[in-house]
Amino acid sequence: MLYDDQNIFARIIRNELPAIKVYEDDQVVAFMDIMPQAEGHTLVIPKTPAVTLLDLAPEAAAYTIQIVQKIAQAMEKALDIKGVVLMQLSGAAAGQTVPHVHFHLIPTSVHELGKHALHMGDQEKIKVLAEKIKAAL
Amino acid sequence: MLYDDQNIFARIIRNELPAIKVYEDDQVVAFMDIMPQAEGHTLVIPKTPAVTLLDLAPEAAAYTIQIVQKIAQAMEKALDIKGVVLMQLSGAAAGQTVPHVHFHLIPTSVHELGKHALHMGDQEKIKVLAEKIKAAL
Repeated sequence: MLYDDQNIFARIIRNELPAIKVYEDDQVVAFMDIMPQAEGHTLVIPKTPAVTLLDLAPEAAAYTIQIVQKIAQAMEKALDIKGVVLMQLSGAAAGQTVPHVHFHLIPTSVHELGKHALHMGDQEKIKVLAEKIKAAL
Repeated sequence: MLYDDQNIFARIIRNELPAIKVYEDDQVVAFMDIMPQAEGHTLVIPKTPAVTLLDLAPEAAAYTIQIVQKIAQAMEKALDIKGVVLMQLSGAAAGQTVPHVHFHLIPTSVHELGKHALHMGDQEKIKVLAEKIKAAL
């Protein structure tokens, strides 16, 4: 799929847009979802340009999932959570809204997911959660 | 988390229980979900014993996600789908039912997910879908 390098995650990767980051290295960045579906909702994205998981270079996928594991482990340590939903939507028809491959880590039950409306979260509260996750990494 | 080697996926890995497989190698097996949340619902599991993604050896996660990519690509080629939801539930509180780490590939929209009741699918129809996916791998 054709990659639009002006999508908001590409701009976050280039530091053109702000994000509440919990982790960053040369290949991956992880940051808080500003419209969380549950408290602690975090996004993990490879820096490699790719629209969907199907387009992503296999080695980038392999690296990213290991960071997903690390972030999930930190969330489990840092936050009062009992389970975490990993979700990755490939294609607008699947519900993908930003055309840069991203993994959602949502500390909730899959049965609760649909009940959350999309709305801006309390950014100060989100920053506190981010600090907790960072401290547990 | 303590691993129960009598869980149904461990038994599928050991060929003690049947499964409609689309892919298998020494590290991973992929098979059709017999209670699909959408037509073509496929599961990809590492053979390494682990309850959740948080427990899984990083190298097993890295390998498995690359097979997830391949299966998703084959589903896109073989089936009339426009998008695919990847989902991985860690912990009973997240909705995990079988205590062996598994990745769901569901050709649907995330907004449709909650609408499907858990029920047995038409096994003959599922076998046909499996053959199509296998042929596209």
